[in-house]
Amino acid sequence: MTRAVSAIVGMGPGNGAALARRFAADGSPVALLSRGTDFSSQLARELPAARAYACDASQPEAVQAAFAQVAAQQGPVGTLIYNAGSGAWGSVEQVSGADLEQCWRVNTLGLFTAMQAVLPGMKQRGGGAIVIIGATASRRGGAGAAAFAQAKAAQRALAESMARQLWPQGIHVALIIIDGIVDLPRTRAQRPDKPESFFVQPAAVAESAWWLTHQPRSAWSFEIEARPFGETW
Amino acid sequence: MTRAVSAIVGMGPGNGAALARRFAADGSPVALLSRGTDFSSQLARELPAARAYACDASQPEAVQAAFAQVAAQQGPVGTLIYNAGSGAWGSVEQVSGADLEQCWRVNTLGLFTAMQAVLPGMKQRGGGAIVIIGATASRRGGAGAAAFAQAKAAQRALAESMARQLWPQGIHVALIIIDGIVDLPRTRAQRPDKPESFFVQPAAVAESAWWLTHQPRSAWSFEIEARPFGETW
Amino acid sequence: MTRAVSAIVGMGPGNGAALARRFAADGSPVALLSRGTDFSSQLARELPAARAYACDASQPEAVQAAFAQVAAQQGPVGTLIYNAGSGAWGSVEQVSGADLEQCWRVNTLGLFTAMQAVLPGMKQRGGGAIVIIGATASRRGGAGAAAFAQAKAAQRALAESMARQLWPQGIHVALIIIDGIVDLPRTRAQRPDKPESFFVQPAAVAESAWWLTHQPRSAWSFEIEARPFGETW
Amino acid sequence: MTRAVSAIVGMGPGNGAALARRFAADGSPVALLSRGTDFSSQLARELPAARAYACDASQPEAVQAAFAQVAAQQGPVGTLIYNAGSGAWGSVEQVSGADLEQCWRVNTLGLFTAMQAVLPGMKQRGGGAIVIIGATASRRGGAGAAAFAQAKAAQRALAESMARQLWPQGIHVALIIIDGIVDLPRTRAQRPDKPESFFVQPAAVAESAWWLTHQPRSAWSFEIEARPFGETW
Repeated sequence: MTRAVSAIVGMGPGNGAALARRFAADGSPVALLSRGTDFSSQLARELPAARAYACDASQPEAVQAAFAQVAAQQGPVGTLIYNAGSGAWGSVEQVSGADLEQCWRVNTLGLFTAMQAVLPGMKQRGGGAIVIIGATASRRGGAGAAAFAQAKAAQRALAESMARQLWPQGIHVALIIIDGIVDLPRTRAQRPDKPESFFVQPAAVAESAWWLTHQPRSAWSFEIEARPFGETW
Repeated sequence: MTRAVSAIVGMGPGNGAALARRFAADGSPVALLSRGTDFSSQLARELPAARAYACDASQPEAVQAAFAQVAAQQGPVGTLIYNAGSGAWGSVEQVSGADLEQCWRVNTLGLFTAMQAVLPGMKQRGGGAIVIIGATASRRGGAGAAAFAQAKAAQRALAESMARQLWPQGIHVALIIIDGIVDLPRTRAQRPDKPESFFVQPAAVAESAWWLTHQPRSAWSFEIEARPFGETW
Repeated sequence: MTRAVSAIVGMGPGNGAALARRFAADGSPVALLSRGTDFSSQLARELPAARAYACDASQPEAVQAAFAQVAAQQGPVGTLIYNAGSGAWGSVEQVSGADLEQCWRVNTLGLFTAMQAVLPGMKQRGGGAIVIIGATASRRGGAGAAAFAQAKAAQRALAESMARQLWPQGIHVALIIIDGIVDLPRTRAQRPDKPESFFVQPAAVAESAWWLTHQPRSAWSFEIEARPFGETW
Repeated sequence: MTRAVSAIVGMGPGNGAALARRFAADGSPVALLSRGTDFSSQLARELPAARAYACDASQPEAVQAAFAQVAAQQGPVGTLIYNAGSGAWGSVEQVSGADLEQCWRVNTLGLFTAMQAVLPGMKQRGGGAIVIIGATASRRGGAGAAAFAQAKAAQRALAESMARQLWPQGIHVALIIIDGIVDLPRTRAQRPDKPESFFVQPAAVAESAWWLTHQPRSAWSFEIEARPFGETW
């Protein structure tokens, strides 16, 4: 009997790669979906049963096509991790309507379309898990994150609507609020003054996502933080 | 010297009309912007210095064009009331990606575009007010409001980003959470069993919006509720 | 016919005095309750129908006795403003259990006891208003406000329970979150570098409290902020 | 080298017993603190390295004495689970000031005193974990939970102050919001119509508490829910 696929949307050297490694650790099949595939193809080769798929999360047709490919090549998706979520920085005086729209399409519309793609299979299997990677901006509309915060808040509200509708059907929708700076060569270079305790380790985020997908269903969590112990909040 | 215009986006027989009447009550000019103008044109004739403008809030070009007309015909906008906000009902299994997008365009992108249109004038005048009409769904992603809640949450986060950026410039951005059913012939007919105490009176919402635009700036409110005293919450 | 009394618990040169002046402005009777009466007695002499009462808000018997005096000397209370609320500063490593308890008694138990004292009269009159003066700490447990934040959070939750129970009976319970530093000779001296725009003006807080007690009951607010326009939040 | 003790305050057949079993599962010493010791003594005999202590959480001296005994008999506490938390039900018209105080002493003052008792040891060891068992009322002041909600809100704010102060010192303070009815013979009997999916399983709560105490410190959670998948929220 084939094991269900873990599909991860949004793939880079930080949380994306760590999530892929964690969900592939027991040999389960993982599908890596991202706009470009240079990084994900390389990563897929290092993992036991992984495949990379090109998928622009802001384009519903592209998301639908990619998930159709996943189903055809690897089988039904049991776990969806939605990690797509970059965004333009700047205040309401600096960003454009196009920035708002692109941010919303990647963070919110993409999540909705991916959910639609995997839902029939999850319902048929009698359950599943959908974990969304949020950010501080999911909870707070900061002055300098006008485009990003509105998209992350929309994503969080959509996740909440999904949870209320899908939990009773055995599908665990959960949100991880990353409240800190993810440890990457790029972010380290930007903050050379900061100690290691300042950064969120992607492997730890992946561990939380893994745990959420294995919680007993009588005590599910909807929203949890991933915040470095040294963070001021 | 000409008095600044109060521009109200979203015009119907409920909050829209009540807001128009309240802000026109002292004879000040009001601009009524809405997709169709049958209702607003009629209303404009009843008010001392009002004009109706066709404006599809989901289309940035339409919003920009309408505000250019307002400026040309009535002068600079000192107060913007953003009341556009209908939405498709249904769970994540019932609504479509197009529903999510339309909802987001009307509630969030439209607010952003309207804000962009009035901001230069407000900054030139050294101040202004922007009041957004929210809903219970601005705070809570209910199962049956998947499209509406994600849009209202995005709108609220955008309002918060706007407030943090624009308050120090003298522009009071505030949000009214309507937590109840607005009293309209239509909503009364849908709930014939409910007493008057069940409904939100549009005139009372308008009174709150008026008050927000007149708060002393040393004690501004960002978010207030408009909730009937008999409501269960 | 006698007009109902506005009773204000917590009296000092900031919000307390401003609330007293505002609610006495139309000649209505006001009762000024505070631990010491040096300040309040002086203030009472300046107002048309005011009296000062000694009342240690942390002692239920003292609160009951003071309200019995108010009833005997000025008549039934129609509006209760709960402004008592000082607190020990410090982290959980700096404050004591006694600090927590004293803070809780003044902010929460005192509110409950004052509410009990005025409730029968409000119910008999068919309505009333109870306005509580909260703080940033009502919403957020900061590291340096361990004793104060737990008390303010308890006060806010109690206010919410009161609102849900008492609104349907015509009693408007509302909470004002003071999110900033109140303008006082003392606070000015502590922050000589700050411009006037940094401070919350007590008269503006009083104006908001007054407005809350006059909202039409079809659109009541429970919680509003009083935040200076220049505040970073 | 002796292993650090897990001390659990609040011991009954539901979450208390499940927490004890979970933290004792690897043979580690556990200390069971509760007002009465009939139940906890029995339970302690079933576990490898457990001891029961009488401790009225509402009395600071009793809490201090009990923790002194734990230290003397079992050694330093590495993990504190604060599960004390019963409360009087009823609206603000039904509960008394004494109910509010008792609730606050058990939920908030007791947590503070227990934290004070274990903090020096945790700091000396360079870390530790404090997990608090909250409830729906930690977030929401319901009409029928006037005494309980104010106490749970105070507890939550105190937990937040503790987290902000103690995380940087390596002490992981976290809060589990139990959002549902715990599965017990008593609660089953009260709701004979409800399916198993309606109830929170204590073993699942204990699993979440265990997980929180083992999260990597670069991605700690402060607040998580334990909510049955079938719950309406």
